[in-house]
Amino acid sequence: MTFSFSVVLLGLDLAGVFFFAVSGSLLAARKQFDIIGSLLLASVVSLGGGVIRDIIISAGPPAAFTNPAYLAPPLLATVLVYFLFSSVQRFTSLLILFDAGGLALFCITGTLKAMDAGMNPVAAVLLGVTTAVGGGLLRDITANEVPQLFDPKDLYALPAFAGAVLTMILSVTGAFNAVTAGAVAAIVFAFRVTAWRRQ
Amino acid sequence: MTFSFSVVLLGLDLAGVFFFAVSGSLLAARKQFDIIGSLLLASVVSLGGGVIRDIIISAGPPAAFTNPAYLAPPLLATVLVYFLFSSVQRFTSLLILFDAGGLALFCITGTLKAMDAGMNPVAAVLLGVTTAVGGGLLRDITANEVPQLFDPKDLYALPAFAGAVLTMILSVTGAFNAVTAGAVAAIVFAFRVTAWRRQ
Amino acid sequence: MTFSFSVVLLGLDLAGVFFFAVSGSLLAARKQFDIIGSLLLASVVSLGGGVIRDIIISAGPPAAFTNPAYLAPPLLATVLVYFLFSSVQRFTSLLILFDAGGLALFCITGTLKAMDAGMNPVAAVLLGVTTAVGGGLLRDITANEVPQLFDPKDLYALPAFAGAVLTMILSVTGAFNAVTAGAVAAIVFAFRVTAWRRQ
Repeated sequence: MTFSFSVVLLGLDLAGVFFFAVSGSLLAARKQFDIIGSLLLASVVSLGGGVIRDIIISAGPPAAFTNPAYLAPPLLATVLVYFLFSSVQRFTSLLILFDAGGLALFCITGTLKAMDAGMNPVAAVLLGVTTAVGGGLLRDITANEVPQLFDPKDLYALPAFAGAVLTMILSVTGAFNAVTAGAVAAIVFAFRVTAWRRQ
Repeated sequence: MTFSFSVVLLGLDLAGVFFFAVSGSLLAARKQFDIIGSLLLASVVSLGGGVIRDIIISAGPPAAFTNPAYLAPPLLATVLVYFLFSSVQRFTSLLILFDAGGLALFCITGTLKAMDAGMNPVAAVLLGVTTAVGGGLLRDITANEVPQLFDPKDLYALPAFAGAVLTMILSVTGAFNAVTAGAVAAIVFAFRVTAWRRQ
Repeated sequence: MTFSFSVVLLGLDLAGVFFFAVSGSLLAARKQFDIIGSLLLASVVSLGGGVIRDIIISAGPPAAFTNPAYLAPPLLATVLVYFLFSSVQRFTSLLILFDAGGLALFCITGTLKAMDAGMNPVAAVLLGVTTAVGGGLLRDITANEVPQLFDPKDLYALPAFAGAVLTMILSVTGAFNAVTAGAVAAIVFAFRVTAWRRQ
């Protein structure tokens, strides 16, 4: 992996962490957790999927622990939600939008990290989906909610699967770059949000 | 580990994965999840215990991710349950039987994989039990059920513990083979089902 | 790490395991689990945080599996609670006290093990907090309770965070020894129990 490519990957990953962290803080606000509870739930959601991914890849301690940059998004998300969104009524819509943003980026970075670690394409797609849905599943289990993942009227894993497959194909064919990555993220985000609106 | 032995072990492991996957799909059917929710719950249950086992053994990425063969049982189980069992009334009995089959095989393969990785006999038994009960615990937590594991009127961990101890003794004494493995699996299965019927 | 130092660390870790195990067995008694359910919940709580810690550090199989000494505290705690505390009415107070003891010791040992494995100070503090709150979070999720960690009127993570930061500073400045370790543990314990009493 070239330097510039790994910087793009880190940027996408941190943006995904931020989106998931906001979704965690919004759920914490809806459940009337205090600011520390909000920070904890934001951290579990936003870092959980990536920690699971890095543990499965088995290439040393997870990035969330070794690179302090990963701690900034949950801190920032907690402060933003606490001061800006605490009076917002439409928690659910916002939560779904930020969650969809995290899902769109994590299915890409999870798949790429797996391929970069030498896993086969099928395993890379599986790990991309696991990374993308893992954080949200941890959020819902930890906060004692019914996981969005299992809502029979909604599509959650399918957009992540589509994004992971597209990323794998782009990566194998050498067509993966910042532009195609943005296109995949947009497709997954639109797919997820449309599925939610039409349920 | 000789070639033929590792093939037997892989076969037992895949059979255990299939049994647990059916139990996950049956629970998904009872909770009226759709087919994607069924596939996800089947995957969490059937691959979760083995992923935990392989992460603890620390010998690289879990088999469920590196060997695509592990993806066949949850797919097959989901399709079978969706088309064959969707009209079945006695979900609970079937779920317990398939779960018992998974438990019987996973306490054997978990213990053997641990010994093969050089862990001491006590650790191998502990990992055998963890592997066997891990998937079912993940299934019940994910689907927001009270874990079978903690039902005070039922025995769940004890059959797995018995199977892990028997497997460890057979392995240490060199008496482990396809026949004795089958006997241990039959004992654990009978123990578990009898405990459930007499509760 | 010198020999005597690692013995102190092992002792602190085993004591923390014992405290958390008692908290697990007390919760099991309150939920009317039988003795096997009690042993399982005690094991999940007391060994869970350390297993997560060792998996994240990525230095081979977790100590709970490789060192049989770690199995003694949950066994001892289960037997003690079963025969001594089964008629106790004030489960909650006792549970909080033992949980606070585990929290006080695990934020120290988690931070030290991370620094010893070469992680940076920020990561070490994060891992110390994760180790300390991980077991209790697993206990509450497994037993279907609302996690203490998220109680908005209570402070749970903050004492662990304070203890991890103090341990990191003592370790970096070379001032960590049995006496300062005891002082940190006493501060964290007092902080946690005071927070709980004043809620």
